[in-house]
Amino acid sequence: MNTRSLSLGIDIGGTNTAYGLVNRRGEIITKGSLPTTGHATVEAYISTLQTELVPVIKKAGLENIAGTGIGAPNGNYYTGEIIFAPNLPWKGIIPLANLISEALGLKAILTNDANAAAIGEMTYGAAKGMKDFIMVTLGTGLGSGFVANGQVIYGHDGLAGELGHVIAVRNGRLCNCGRKGCLERYASATGLVITAELWLAERNDATSLRAHKGNLTARMIQEAARKGDAFAQELYEFTAGILGQTLADMVAVTSPEAIIFFGGLANAGDMLLVPAKKHLEDNLLNIYKNKVTLLQSALPDADAAILGASALAW
Amino acid sequence: MNTRSLSLGIDIGGTNTAYGLVNRRGEIITKGSLPTTGHATVEAYISTLQTELVPVIKKAGLENIAGTGIGAPNGNYYTGEIIFAPNLPWKGIIPLANLISEALGLKAILTNDANAAAIGEMTYGAAKGMKDFIMVTLGTGLGSGFVANGQVIYGHDGLAGELGHVIAVRNGRLCNCGRKGCLERYASATGLVITAELWLAERNDATSLRAHKGNLTARMIQEAARKGDAFAQELYEFTAGILGQTLADMVAVTSPEAIIFFGGLANAGDMLLVPAKKHLEDNLLNIYKNKVTLLQSALPDADAAILGASALAW
Repeated sequence: MNTRSLSLGIDIGGTNTAYGLVNRRGEIITKGSLPTTGHATVEAYISTLQTELVPVIKKAGLENIAGTGIGAPNGNYYTGEIIFAPNLPWKGIIPLANLISEALGLKAILTNDANAAAIGEMTYGAAKGMKDFIMVTLGTGLGSGFVANGQVIYGHDGLAGELGHVIAVRNGRLCNCGRKGCLERYASATGLVITAELWLAERNDATSLRAHKGNLTARMIQEAARKGDAFAQELYEFTAGILGQTLADMVAVTSPEAIIFFGGLANAGDMLLVPAKKHLEDNLLNIYKNKVTLLQSALPDADAAILGASALAW
Repeated sequence: MNTRSLSLGIDIGGTNTAYGLVNRRGEIITKGSLPTTGHATVEAYISTLQTELVPVIKKAGLENIAGTGIGAPNGNYYTGEIIFAPNLPWKGIIPLANLISEALGLKAILTNDANAAAIGEMTYGAAKGMKDFIMVTLGTGLGSGFVANGQVIYGHDGLAGELGHVIAVRNGRLCNCGRKGCLERYASATGLVITAELWLAERNDATSLRAHKGNLTARMIQEAARKGDAFAQELYEFTAGILGQTLADMVAVTSPEAIIFFGGLANAGDMLLVPAKKHLEDNLLNIYKNKVTLLQSALPDADAAILGASALAW
């Protein structure tokens, strides 16, 4: 076995943390996950992470691992910190790269989880060979990575690419960030559920989802829509509408050749992407029409983010 | 004199075309302008441009000129064409770089006028040393150039950076582009005048501008505001409000260290930039607050665009 033939990728989401050991060919040789939530402090979370990962690292051989790349909401590539992440349980500024580096005995590099996914798609997935694209991760929240001229746009402070907090509806729904109308309050698993609960309270549609009022999940809505529930399908149409019109504005900024979707909500596939494409086209400035491809991630499940994170560490 | 010691910069605006011969130190050694409007066809415009510029080129010596860089609305860096430019008199796809190259006998490179201004500011002006900033040109329309990682974002097709056609007000004012609520229908010289005429029709404010109802210009509004006319000042406050809240969304995409303003409306200076900064901050996601500087162009009048355009040709 070559020295330093592996890299550890860690993807920290609002609900779960996924990790994988990746070889230089981009194959995940071992993977696993743990809950992100349920720890009183970030130190307690790091302790759980350490308990989980130290045996994995020992088994593969610490001397074989080049380092660890971490994708996390509001992760700062330049400083290694996560800063006021509305979708993580820990508030304020957390020196996450340092904490993980000390816990695991590995060099650690941090970025936004969506930037990590973008790097994963560019290296191994749907964005292979692309120089200009937008990565959109539709999970608990909505993350994004903008790639221009073949490079992730980090911005002057390392914090660029917060599409989830672009205002989609002026004076709209209150967001965890304290502002109103952020895209992720509409276009995310959370947003889909909020819309569903609001509509169930306001409308009288006959829908199988009514039985779960107050306890809906995005998965229930997806299953109902697949089974032909018109109410559930309209929820996707509405969500895709807000997503498409907001993306039309983003296309006017970076003119990407593709927008790539990843995450739980994106797994709805055509049910979301077909209407999103329609609403995108309806709202695009002429010069951009019929040029942008909407794609689903070419990497299975959480692998895009793990692979992307791991690529940071080489 | 060195061989190829000069470059010709041409800035084509909706109303006027400005040009200048620039040396390698960024000094404009001769400059002039002609109207963009008033020609029946693009060929007639090129003919006027030729009549104006051939003597200038002869005087400087064709052999001394490296080429010409052109900034124009919707200019495409990759193809040398202008494509469906709503603020130029010619419609459809115009191979402008080729037409000008043939007319002047010089190699010609085209870009968006605002991208040209961005390159000018980066090379000689307010963005010297910056790697991440947004250039906003506030003239007849609103143009923009986004710079990330020290490079202009051209997008996959060369047409990125149309901030003027980001939707600022959903279902708002009808734009020349056929869509509704584009930022440039509010934040531009044209937008300022539209707001003023609408308010004069709807409201009864005592204002010196009422005497010019139906024939207002942005210059009249600026002069009235400077003299303390409360109605004119409120027009700037309103315009800055829409500009600031839309820019807050753009900061979430590229996280720039500065936003640099150029053009007629930007010449209002603090009257526009102070309220724009306030509205920007009020609308920013926490992680971006108190980090973005709003600056006026450091290059006089039309020089930013001429210098930027000329820099393309070296």
